[in-house]
Amino acid sequence: VVIGMSAIENAKLIGLDWGSTSLRAFLIGGDGLPLETRTGPHGASTLSGADAYVQVLNDIAGDWIAARPDLPLLACGMVGSKHGWKDVPYQNCPANADKLATGLQWVPGAAVKIVPGLLHITGEDTPELMRGEETQIVGALGLDPELAQGAVIVLPGTHSKWAQVAGGVVQDFATYMTGEMFAVLRGHSVLGKLLPETLPKVSSDDDQTDFLRGVVAARDFGDLGLTHQLFAVRSLGVTDKLSSVGLLNYLSGLLIGHELRSALVWRDKAGLTTAPIVLVGDVNLCQRYQLALQSYGQAVKSILPDASPVGLWQVAVKAGLVK
Amino acid sequence: VVIGMSAIENAKLIGLDWGSTSLRAFLIGGDGLPLETRTGPHGASTLSGADAYVQVLNDIAGDWIAARPDLPLLACGMVGSKHGWKDVPYQNCPANADKLATGLQWVPGAAVKIVPGLLHITGEDTPELMRGEETQIVGALGLDPELAQGAVIVLPGTHSKWAQVAGGVVQDFATYMTGEMFAVLRGHSVLGKLLPETLPKVSSDDDQTDFLRGVVAARDFGDLGLTHQLFAVRSLGVTDKLSSVGLLNYLSGLLIGHELRSALVWRDKAGLTTAPIVLVGDVNLCQRYQLALQSYGQAVKSILPDASPVGLWQVAVKAGLVK
Repeated sequence: VVIGMSAIENAKLIGLDWGSTSLRAFLIGGDGLPLETRTGPHGASTLSGADAYVQVLNDIAGDWIAARPDLPLLACGMVGSKHGWKDVPYQNCPANADKLATGLQWVPGAAVKIVPGLLHITGEDTPELMRGEETQIVGALGLDPELAQGAVIVLPGTHSKWAQVAGGVVQDFATYMTGEMFAVLRGHSVLGKLLPETLPKVSSDDDQTDFLRGVVAARDFGDLGLTHQLFAVRSLGVTDKLSSVGLLNYLSGLLIGHELRSALVWRDKAGLTTAPIVLVGDVNLCQRYQLALQSYGQAVKSILPDASPVGLWQVAVKAGLVK
Repeated sequence: VVIGMSAIENAKLIGLDWGSTSLRAFLIGGDGLPLETRTGPHGASTLSGADAYVQVLNDIAGDWIAARPDLPLLACGMVGSKHGWKDVPYQNCPANADKLATGLQWVPGAAVKIVPGLLHITGEDTPELMRGEETQIVGALGLDPELAQGAVIVLPGTHSKWAQVAGGVVQDFATYMTGEMFAVLRGHSVLGKLLPETLPKVSSDDDQTDFLRGVVAARDFGDLGLTHQLFAVRSLGVTDKLSSVGLLNYLSGLLIGHELRSALVWRDKAGLTTAPIVLVGDVNLCQRYQLALQSYGQAVKSILPDASPVGLWQVAVKAGLVK
């Protein structure tokens, strides 16, 4: 690996977004933006024991550390969970970058600090949890300071997170197991038998029509139940009303449509009906959510694909790790 | 196998409830009740080609057929699907035993007739399908003729079916993939890591409390979404609020609670709010549903564990196969 000389010279922080299934390392400059980004497959769920983490860290960023041993290292994500490198206790909502900074913990024997996740006891009297997304939310607030006045920040994914921001602080958040539900139904349920192997992109007009048909079914008839509506993926296939790819887009639309239906109720209960909505994460997936939100009459203010490095930077600043 | 002599002498019909994953054979008497019942593992999903069906039929009922070659044979279930022994076209709702009888088809080259399934285009403009349950519903109406005046007949299972009966006729029905969702989430999602291997029964007070906590969460906060509430199975486990068995009961309660929440909306829209509710099928599962229905203030008129043979009998009578 050849490091850009100006990048390494200008770097102020090494950031790590270390999730369950993947790792991204950032060489971060003085504006909080990444000068260089590297990606690796060694998520926390694939690693066991401190030596394994040290090895993976050296593989992905050893040359950065050797060239600039003065740079602080800050990590977020499942690396800080009970089954990660070091169990870092959750912070409670309401929370912002300052609060995350107060909860940083050193990994014993390593020059790495880890950002805590967030825990919130909801109005339903059940706990909500996130690790990693709190840093992306702080990053979104760094990238668009107007959001501090009030926003709904949505991070679509395996476990989608919706966060309510007011007064620059995360007040509440909610998880939707949309991506995981899509994967297990496709891979392991009777619905999967009718579906194609590959993940569809909403690329053609037909794909968009089938996806939106699922979204609209959730929007207009969602009170009849997700587990009921999912059966239509089978019945529309058995009766030859939709192609295999069409069924997969329809399934995606149903699941995302149900997520939106529920999350918008939750948002409205919090009085954030007119707050801007921002999507954070993979652009293709965010565009799918944007399309679905349009069916609900909801505009998206922006899509932010890369909020982690800025979030790590914000927390590092508040913690005094960088100036 | 030794056949009871009086049973075989008194028999009027050989009935087969031949589903995807199991087969039950009934020697049925003149009152429609089974004189003898046999169970086998060779569901339609395990069989391919007519010879395989002939073999399984001979294994489970060959002695009955040899002793009483005059008895008609009538089958229901996935044996009549596209991937079964013979594809028997669906009948449309509204439907009763008479209509099912008009749709019977012979299996080519075998002395077996198969009951058609039902297809219904719902108010959501998606098809609903059943094969096998239509015969159980007709059986329930045979066992309790009062239900013909108006009833909601519920068949809990992998794909639970709810049927609206009025004027002795199935007017509409709806599927809920509750049992399959339970199985795939337990076996293949992140939730499964926290759950025990064995299926819980609601046997202790603690089990009942955890199950009902899930039901009540669905009842009171279900508008916040099933895929959201499912994440609580994880968060309650990670934060040590519920034991492994407790989480499994909670998951079961959430899923059944969401089924009831949705199905009762569907029932009320049809004006059947005061109609009796009858549960058909496995007694343990039906008792779990009964408990959950109590949380919704809904009484159950009766649990009918064995409606298939009576249903086959009703259809055979209407078709003139028996007198």
